[in-house]
Amino acid sequence: MLEFKDFEEKTIQRNEIFHGKIIDVVVDDVSLPNGGTSKRELVFHPGGVAVIALTSENKMLFVRQFRKPLERVILEIPAGKIDPGEGARPDLTGARELEEETGYRAKTLEHVSSMYLSPGFANELLHVYYAKELEKVTNPLPQDEDEVLEVYELTLEQAQAAIADGTICDAKTVFAIQFWELLELKRRNGLA
Amino acid sequence: MLEFKDFEEKTIQRNEIFHGKIIDVVVDDVSLPNGGTSKRELVFHPGGVAVIALTSENKMLFVRQFRKPLERVILEIPAGKIDPGEGARPDLTGARELEEETGYRAKTLEHVSSMYLSPGFANELLHVYYAKELEKVTNPLPQDEDEVLEVYELTLEQAQAAIADGTICDAKTVFAIQFWELLELKRRNGLA
Repeated sequence: MLEFKDFEEKTIQRNEIFHGKIIDVVVDDVSLPNGGTSKRELVFHPGGVAVIALTSENKMLFVRQFRKPLERVILEIPAGKIDPGEGARPDLTGARELEEETGYRAKTLEHVSSMYLSPGFANELLHVYYAKELEKVTNPLPQDEDEVLEVYELTLEQAQAAIADGTICDAKTVFAIQFWELLELKRRNGLA
Repeated sequence: MLEFKDFEEKTIQRNEIFHGKIIDVVVDDVSLPNGGTSKRELVFHPGGVAVIALTSENKMLFVRQFRKPLERVILEIPAGKIDPGEGARPDLTGARELEEETGYRAKTLEHVSSMYLSPGFANELLHVYYAKELEKVTNPLPQDEDEVLEVYELTLEQAQAAIADGTICDAKTVFAIQFWELLELKRRNGLA
């Protein structure tokens, strides 16, 4: 659509810092398009999937869990990392995470967006799906053993109140609630 | 608003991996609320500010730049890291980044949201502002010397096309365009 000049930063040298279970960290020495040089601290992450899930009562599903980087519990939409081998089918990751975390299965998962969360330093890509026609599963997939969480079902008003009081405070979940608000207004206008 | 059980993960030991110019990386050994233990790979980041800026012609301002973690150029809303000392006034960071990156100043910056981009492993908090009453500055603040970027002004339709073709692909920018779509629909309904 748009024509672009060449802005590439060429890697002069890559310095490997950390190879973790989830993330890898490197520092690249780069040459800039304007002739200078700089360093880029980079985090590589396998990416994840998040699910916007509305029940038949028009409530959204949330999971509440402790997040170590924030040292507090927050309320988020169901989400999880892409496991090895799942990369080509993020919808399957979404279906798995939805069932593991909430005990619900969806008839269809509609792709909403795939977005880099923090493109300045990380390559983490989050795929967001909108789950339709949910049904409760009698024997759902078990939760991950290092995940401890609770499920909540909130109305749009309750979700917006949870943003206002800081219980909901992460990008994918704020995005999901804005998506929901837009969906409601589209419905009211005969657009959805 | 909601009553929560104690889900805290207690740090048994912190292992410092990397102290960079922008990010710090640690690995925490934690005890889980269910009695088990696990490791948490954590990235600490100073946080940033992004600006949703609509011109008097109802076009949104975007900057185009190369992003090393993605090895490609993308189109994003103006944004930048919080500098030391700016932490208490993210609106000032927003005003500075808007002027440095686009050459525009806003009469007011309205707070839209403060959200953690990737709470599973990073504490990066992004403050998003909605800039109103933009005016072009004759002698704007200079761009950072290690930033090479171009400014674009797009209509909502063009921005949505840029999402569809992948030129726009990061969370804050997809969020900003959804915010804009919602704003337009609210206006049409007499709600904004």
